[in-house]
Amino acid sequence: MKRILLVVAYDGTNYCGWQVQPNGITVQEVLNQKLSELLGENIETIGASRTDAGVHALGNVAVFDTETRIPGEKISYALNQRLPDDIRIQESREVPPDFHPRYQESEKTYVYRILNRRFQIPTARLYSYFYHYDLNTELMQQAADYLLGEHDFASFCGAGAQVKTTVRTVTGITVTREGDEITITVKGRGFLYNMVRIISGTLIEIGGGLYPPEKMKDILEAKKRTEAGPTAPAHGLTLVGIRFLNEA
Amino acid sequence: MKRILLVVAYDGTNYCGWQVQPNGITVQEVLNQKLSELLGENIETIGASRTDAGVHALGNVAVFDTETRIPGEKISYALNQRLPDDIRIQESREVPPDFHPRYQESEKTYVYRILNRRFQIPTARLYSYFYHYDLNTELMQQAADYLLGEHDFASFCGAGAQVKTTVRTVTGITVTREGDEITITVKGRGFLYNMVRIISGTLIEIGGGLYPPEKMKDILEAKKRTEAGPTAPAHGLTLVGIRFLNEA
Repeated sequence: MKRILLVVAYDGTNYCGWQVQPNGITVQEVLNQKLSELLGENIETIGASRTDAGVHALGNVAVFDTETRIPGEKISYALNQRLPDDIRIQESREVPPDFHPRYQESEKTYVYRILNRRFQIPTARLYSYFYHYDLNTELMQQAADYLLGEHDFASFCGAGAQVKTTVRTVTGITVTREGDEITITVKGRGFLYNMVRIISGTLIEIGGGLYPPEKMKDILEAKKRTEAGPTAPAHGLTLVGIRFLNEA
Repeated sequence: MKRILLVVAYDGTNYCGWQVQPNGITVQEVLNQKLSELLGENIETIGASRTDAGVHALGNVAVFDTETRIPGEKISYALNQRLPDDIRIQESREVPPDFHPRYQESEKTYVYRILNRRFQIPTARLYSYFYHYDLNTELMQQAADYLLGEHDFASFCGAGAQVKTTVRTVTGITVTREGDEITITVKGRGFLYNMVRIISGTLIEIGGGLYPPEKMKDILEAKKRTEAGPTAPAHGLTLVGIRFLNEA
C-alpha cells in the first residue's frame, strides 16, 4: 500500500464543484472513477480544497491509497489519457502514508479575476467576472491591507459553514491591474466557506466607490456576514496552488 | 438609409465560422437574425474577415445598411442585450455609405497562441493550442523574419482558395514567450486562406527543431503548399483587430 499525491487542474465550468454529492457530477467523482478503472481497485481520493461549483483550479491537491506497482510519477500520464479534457493532472508522486492534504500545514493561493471594461470579451467570460463600472484598484488595495494577518473573518464566512473558529490568517493579499483585467491574489493557511469570494465582492464595492477603504476595518470588526459585500460569482475564482510547509 | 459599422468579438468554439453556410450556425447568421429582430428590417451584414470554424475574434468588423433612427453608437448596447454570451459588440458607429470592410485598405492583426508545457491547463484549452514538446522561440522568430514584407505566399495558402494572386504583404510578425504561453502575432494588409495557421504550423515545426530557421526561405521560394508545415488548429487563432488606413 502506498499513498499518491496528485496536483489537479480543472475547468470548473461544467462541474458541481470538487466534492462528491448527489445532485451532479463533481471533479472528485470523475477522478475516483477514472483512477479505479486505471488501477483496478476501488479508489477514494481525499481533496485538499473542496472548491465550489464553477470554481477553477490550476493546482488543487488530492491523495489516495493504492496497491499499484505503477511508479507514482507515471500515474499522471496514464490518468490524463482517461480524463475528460477539462481535468488534467499536473503532477503525481508518492508521499508518506500519513500525509493528509487537509491536516498538513499549507499555504493556499487563490486568484479572483475581474474583467473591468465597457463590454464583455466572449473569450474571457468563463474565467473572469465581467464588471462594467470603473474600479479603482488603489482603493481596493488599501481596503485589502486591513485583512492581512490573523483576524476573526466571521464577516467573510458564507452561511451554512460548520467551523469551530472563524479566525484565519491571510498571509498575502494584492490587487493588480493589467489593462482591463484586475487580479485579486489571496494567500492564506486556510479559508472559510466562500471567504475569497466574499472578500472579492466587498473589494469590488469599495473599488466602485460605494464605501471608502477604511470601511473594510469596520466590516472585519463587526463579525457579521451582513456587513460585508456580496459573494462574487464562482467563475472568477481559481485555486492557483497549495504549498505544503513541512513536507517530508 | 445609413451604414453602420460593428466591431464584433466572439468565442468561435461553438460556431462554424463567420460566414453563413448551410451546415451549421455561424456568427454572421446570428448577427443578421438578432439585428433584423432589433431593427424590424431584413438586415444582411458584410464581414471584413470570414474567420474559419473555431477561430476567435476580439475585433472582427461588419457593416450593414438600415433605416433605423437609433443612433449608431447606441446599437451596440441594444444588440448585446439580444446576443448569446459568446458574441459581444465592442463598438457601433455610422460610416459613409460606400464604406466596405473588405475593399477598404486595412491592416489586420492576428494572434496565434500556443501553450507550451508538459501538461495541458484545462482553463487554457479553448483559446490556445497545447503543444507538449519544447519550442525555441528565438529560432521561431528568426524563421518568421523571412516572411516580413511583400512575398508570394503560395506555400502558405490553404487548398480550395480562389484568389487572383497569392502575393501578400506581412507588415509585422513577432514570436514572444511569457511563461508557458507563446504568442505569434502577425499583421498584414490581407491574408490568404489559412495563411496565419499554416505560418504558425510551420513555425512550430522549426521551433521544435525539425528544420533550421533558414528553411523558411526555401519554403517561401518553393511556392508549394506541400513544402510548408501543417495547418495549426483553429482554436489557437484570434483575430485581434482591423485598422482601416484611410478611414474618413
